[in-house]
This record gives sequence, C-alpha cells and structure tokens, in this order.
Amino acid sequence: MRTLAKELASKIDKKVEIKGWLHKKRLLGGLNFLTIRDRSGLIQVLAEDKTEIEKLRGMQIGTVLTIAGKVIKDDRAPNGAELHDVKITVEVPVTEEPPIEIDKPLDHKSDNLDTLFDHRVVGLRNLQEQTIFKVQAEVLKSFRTYMNEHEFIEINTPKLLAEPTEGGTEVFKMDYFGKVATLAQSPQFYKQMMTGVFERVFEINPVYRAEPSATSRHMTEYISMDGEMNFITFDDLLHLISGLINRISDDVFAKYAGELAKWNGTKPKLTAEIPRLRLAEVHEKYSKATGENSIGEDDLRPDEERWVSDFAKKNLGSEAVFVTDWAASSMKFYHRKKADNPEVAERADLIFRGIEITTISMREHRYDILVEQLKAIAHGDPDHAGFKAYLTAFKFGMPPHGGFGMGLERVTEKLVGLKNVKEASLFPRDLNRLAP
Amino acid sequence: MRTLAKELASKIDKKVEIKGWLHKKRLLGGLNFLTIRDRSGLIQVLAEDKTEIEKLRGMQIGTVLTIAGKVIKDDRAPNGAELHDVKITVEVPVTEEPPIEIDKPLDHKSDNLDTLFDHRVVGLRNLQEQTIFKVQAEVLKSFRTYMNEHEFIEINTPKLLAEPTEGGTEVFKMDYFGKVATLAQSPQFYKQMMTGVFERVFEINPVYRAEPSATSRHMTEYISMDGEMNFITFDDLLHLISGLINRISDDVFAKYAGELAKWNGTKPKLTAEIPRLRLAEVHEKYSKATGENSIGEDDLRPDEERWVSDFAKKNLGSEAVFVTDWAASSMKFYHRKKADNPEVAERADLIFRGIEITTISMREHRYDILVEQLKAIAHGDPDHAGFKAYLTAFKFGMPPHGGFGMGLERVTEKLVGLKNVKEASLFPRDLNRLAP
Repeated sequence: MRTLAKELASKIDKKVEIKGWLHKKRLLGGLNFLTIRDRSGLIQVLAEDKTEIEKLRGMQIGTVLTIAGKVIKDDRAPNGAELHDVKITVEVPVTEEPPIEIDKPLDHKSDNLDTLFDHRVVGLRNLQEQTIFKVQAEVLKSFRTYMNEHEFIEINTPKLLAEPTEGGTEVFKMDYFGKVATLAQSPQFYKQMMTGVFERVFEINPVYRAEPSATSRHMTEYISMDGEMNFITFDDLLHLISGLINRISDDVFAKYAGELAKWNGTKPKLTAEIPRLRLAEVHEKYSKATGENSIGEDDLRPDEERWVSDFAKKNLGSEAVFVTDWAASSMKFYHRKKADNPEVAERADLIFRGIEITTISMREHRYDILVEQLKAIAHGDPDHAGFKAYLTAFKFGMPPHGGFGMGLERVTEKLVGLKNVKEASLFPRDLNRLAP
Repeated sequence: MRTLAKELASKIDKKVEIKGWLHKKRLLGGLNFLTIRDRSGLIQVLAEDKTEIEKLRGMQIGTVLTIAGKVIKDDRAPNGAELHDVKITVEVPVTEEPPIEIDKPLDHKSDNLDTLFDHRVVGLRNLQEQTIFKVQAEVLKSFRTYMNEHEFIEINTPKLLAEPTEGGTEVFKMDYFGKVATLAQSPQFYKQMMTGVFERVFEINPVYRAEPSATSRHMTEYISMDGEMNFITFDDLLHLISGLINRISDDVFAKYAGELAKWNGTKPKLTAEIPRLRLAEVHEKYSKATGENSIGEDDLRPDEERWVSDFAKKNLGSEAVFVTDWAASSMKFYHRKKADNPEVAERADLIFRGIEITTISMREHRYDILVEQLKAIAHGDPDHAGFKAYLTAFKFGMPPHGGFGMGLERVTEKLVGLKNVKEASLFPRDLNRLAP
C-alpha cells in the first residue's frame, strides 16, 4: 500500500512504502539525503545503508523509485516528516541528466520562454511550474460550479464549421472531403441559438485564431469559457460577471494562496460589483494623466488597459473594471444598441490587471433588426446557408439575451502573475510554434 | 421578479409574473389554455379575458411572453399549478409557424435524422429532446467529479499538431502559416507525458477523425473524455473504470430517471466490478451461439459487440463488460505487452449496451522498449521531431501507467437509449454534414 507525501505526517513512527521520482540527491558520504516527488508533494529520505545507496549509482533525477522505510517526525522536512531505515527499489532507471534543472525556479524571462516551452515535459516536474496548471484546473472548476449554481447548462458545439461565424480573415481553413471547413473562432452563434432552448448555457472548449503574429497576448489556439443567457438586462449580465470573477479569485486563493505566494500571485482586490467606467471617460482620464491623446478612439490602447487597471485599483478599490459605452459604429453585427442611445452598443470589456479578459454584450434579439445589422455591418447575406440556422432561431422567438467569452489562459496568467499568456498554456500555439 | 415553472407550486394563491415561450395554445372560445415554456419546465395558463386573448392574434408558437397572473393549485397541470386572471405582454412576436411541431415526440427514425439535425435549433425546444443534452451535461459533471475525487487534475492540450499523434490516414490537414498542421485524433501523447508531471490527469475536449463514411457509430468531431494515471496496474485501471461507469449511471438516473423513462433510457444493470471476458472466449461463445465464425479474429465484429452485451446482461448481471486479452500483434505501438505473455496486450475494451465506449490499456513505459515498438509497429522514426517531446518524457522517468478515452456522445446515446451517436450531438459532423 503506497503512502503519499501528504499522508506522511499522519504516519509518524510507522513503516510505509512510498513511490515517486528522484527529485534531488545530496550524497554526503555517510549521510545521504534524497528528495522524492509524488503527485502530492516532496518526501525527504535519509539513506545511511551503503547497499541501498549503491543502488542509486549512476541514477539521475527522474529515476522512478519505490522506497520502504520508517516515518520520523521532522519539522524541517517537507510535509513534516522524513523517511529513515530505507530499502530502495529502482523501478525505472534514468541514466541521463535532464536537459533543465527542476529543483529551483525556472527562468520565465521572455528570451527564455522558447526554451521553457521546448522542455515543458521535463520543466513541469518543477513544483512551482505545476502551480500554474493547478490554478488553471481550479479556475475551470470554479467557473463551472458558479455557472451550474446559476442554472447554466453545459453544451458542446462544433469547432468544424462550413463558414466562419464572425467573418474576419483570421480563420484557419482546411479540406473537408473536398469541401472547405474552417475552425471556429468562437461558439458565438451556437451559444446564442442554444439560449433559445435552455435559456442559460455555457461552453468551455478550444477556439482558433489564425493570428499571423506572435505577441504576449495572443495564441492561435486557446480555451474559451463562454456563457450566454436570456430574459435578462445588461445590468444582470454585469452582475453575473462580477460574481464570477470574485468567485474564481476566492476559490483559487482559498486553495493555492501558499503556492501562489512563490509567484507574483497576490489575491486580487475586487469589489462585489465590479466598477464601471465609460470608454470616453477612460480616454479622457488617461489622456490627462499620461499626456498621450486617445480621446475619440474606438478602442482601448494596450497601454490604456494597463493604465485603467491601475486607476481602478487606486481609486475604485478594484483590480477589475468594466469599460462600457463602446461606439455602436464599431460594434459587431450581433451586438445590440442601447435603447436610449443608438450611438452606443450595450457592451462592456472587463479589464483585469492590465488586460481585457472578457468582452460582454447584449445581443440584438429582434429578427428584423438583426438581419438589417447583418447586412449593414457584416455585409452578410441573410439568405446564405451559413446564417440559416442562426437566423431561424431568431425568427421563432429569441428573448433579450447576452453573454461573454473569457480566455482561460489570460485569467490564469493574471491570477498567477505571469507576463505572457503562453506561459499559462501547457503547449502553446502561435505563428512560430506548433510543437511540442 | 420573474417566477419560474418549477417555483409555481410554492406560490399558490400568490400573484406572480412569468416569462417564457408560447409552447402550445388551445383557443376554445371563452376558455383558452396556453402553455408557456421556460428553462425549468411548462406553465399552464388560463386566459379568459378577451382583451388579453386578442393580444395573441396571429402569434405563433415561440412567441416570447411575459404573463402576470394568480397561481391556482391544479394537480392536473404541469408543476401542479395554473395561472389565472392573466395580463399578457408580447415581448417578441413570432408570426410564422415553426418548421416542425415541438409539442409531441419528434421522429428519430433513421430516415428522419437529417431533418431533425437541420432543424435542431427549433427541434430542441421540445422538452423530450432537451433531455438528451441535459443527460449529457450530467455525464460531464459526473465524470469530472469522479476524476477529481480520485485526484486527477484537469488539463487542456493542443488540438493543432505538427504531426498526427497516432499515424493512420484519418487525419484532417490544414495550412498553418505555410506549414502543415493536423487536427488531434486524441490527446494520447500529451496525456501520457502529463502523467510524468501530475501522475493523474484527465481532459475533456473535441477530437477529430477524417472518417470518410457516414455510419451510426462515428462522427468526424466528437468529445473525448480522457483519463491517464501512473503508478498503477491494469487491475487498478479496470477498477477505476468500473467505478466511473457506475457513478455516471447513478448520477444520471438520480437526476433524470423521470425524463429518461420517456425514452428507452432504463437504468443500466451494472456490477460494482465490471465483469471481464477474454477476446478469444467471446469469439468462441459468439460463434457457438450464433453459428457465425469469428474465432481467431483480431477484433470484435459490431454484431459481436451487441451479442456480448446481451450475453453479459443475461449471464453476468451487467450491461457493461470488459473484453480483455487482445493480440499483441495488432496493438498500437504505445501499448504494453503482458509481462507473463508477450503475445497479449494489456488492453480492454469496455462494451456497453452493444458498443465499445472506451478502450483501456497499459502503456509501455520503458524507454528502450517503447522506441523498439515505435519502430517495429508504427514504422516511426524516434529521431523525428514529432516524437521528440514524447520520448523525452520517457527518457527522464515514466512509471507504469495506463489510461482510456471515452466518447461522450456514445455514453449519452446508450444512457438515453438512442440508436445513432449523432442523435447525442447538438450539431453532428460527418462526411456529409458540416452545418448547421
């Protein structure tokens, strides 16, 4: 019966058997310390018997071991205990030194990222590296739990499409038995259609952007956490997202505060309702504060996203802020204009620690207006097969609805305190990277 | 404040406001019954006031309504109550009759499936249709909960690959900034590599098969629920899967037994440990029972999968059965041979209600033997870039491990009692179908 690192403290003075990878060894003659890694942490082993130590001759970090021994309380050791009087079995020998050292923090400077990604498979054996993806798994769990509690149903919609859903050029195309298929850039149309069935749906799946550049903010494949709901107002939507971002932050730091302290991962300061600033207001404040001039611009500059985060943190008590009141002139065709001001789209971007992590909007739910907007804004043909099912859903009754898409890796990046979104992807993909 | 269908019974004699879609109307002169659908079910409405009824003139099924009224107890009505003295507001008018009737069971005969899929968006407004996808969401939840309880960590690995992971011709290829990318057929390599990091990982994501045929068993895109774990034996793996299939069945029927009764969805008979039959044994029994002759074959015939399910149900008390002892001569290169019989691969297929829902195997974890098998079985070049990260993981210490991949839609199909896997996909994809 195997004992895990996390169980050691409950087995003081007992005989146990552990299994794991050789993580570190310090051979000091008579006193030989080994550190063994298993899925729950590290185990310190004291090996004094020469016959046992001899078994490790030539064995490198990564060697898979079974070790029987007695658990001795030791507060200095990881998990508060050490293994003594050991019998070692080499299960899988490793005779070559690993390409990167895994027992100290790895270099995340931008010019070392390629090395990091090339050696992911070994590099992730570093416990601090693992934190990133444990946090990511918790973000997923937290997101789903919150959505389920709010009566959202999980759906899966196809990524192989006949037509790009949102137009644009950043679409991967492929041969599909002699036809052309494209990869979904988002589940936008499908999740909207499905609100007509389930009212509230969420989907977590990869999406694809043929982004012909390699930046710290973009990948060609990422995981999108999407939500869509109907019979609601814009305020309902922002209320939902406020609760969601608070919940994810609470869950992640409840579980991994200790591990995150080794990164720059401090718990975000957030208000229960995330504060709102209008786009024009942000431009004005930013221009005044920095001497730059963004007034009148349609979008937030990357630098402005960072600035408004700092501003909100200092002045509004929140590291997340909704930027609202985007110009209708630059909206997507399925967005809805404000009823009392058709110059403005009912859209908000959630800026969190310097980056947009989700775009939220109410969708135009009235069939006739949607068809008009499709023609005028996307230059789309409503009779085209690619829009048929989508428009049909509206023709047969769609209530007011809205939703959002949140990039899993960006959320992870910002919670851990990373600088490049690719660091929050196990095997990132961009213009230059398609392996491992 | 909106009241949902499921909340009606707790608001008897109270004034409420409901919102939903017109699901059915029977206008009988003075007595007019409306049925309204919301996300939680149906609400029966009695409209007697002529002015109110007049508002519905020309309004078709699907019309979005807000109705204020008084809740009257009525055991014959859905949810045990009816709305009286109503004030109707038409929120979104629908003036065209929907293309399919949604108030009675839809036709799932094989020659009507295309119609069904073409009209999914409207057809799913039928409550019985929705059951399929509510069950599917529950399967996902149940799977994740079980895996989390067993200390598996959720991962997401890329679907855009430089090389096909498992060889074979059924691979979609695409242009990737001037290079060739392929779509992942499974997360096989990645999940194995990640056991070297986390010991136990699971992943739920779409996978792609360029299957140039349209059958009732295959799709070109489906959701694969994958698990992989190490420091285990083959028995541990079958024990895990036994618990998993029992758990999914328990969770789904605890929640949806009522809804599933309207389908052919009876709760599966399952033993705590799923029984095992050797492949040769199945061939022998099948050949004897049916007069067909499958003895010596490498695989199970589709008819044999159905037969062995019936056999196990009648004789072993389980509608699921592991078929074990597959010939090593037809195994994949990453499978492991039995230590005491190298003619046999440590593999089992889980046959459930007539179809294979998962293939389970121990993987070869010894670097040298894996390299040999790669060359001999897959005719692969270990120095090729596509295998580099994979083999590196083994070189630096991989314990004995194994895993499985389970098709979400097949599991759903069999729990609901459908006949074609595509019925269990919201928007199925096959040779002929790329829309909606």
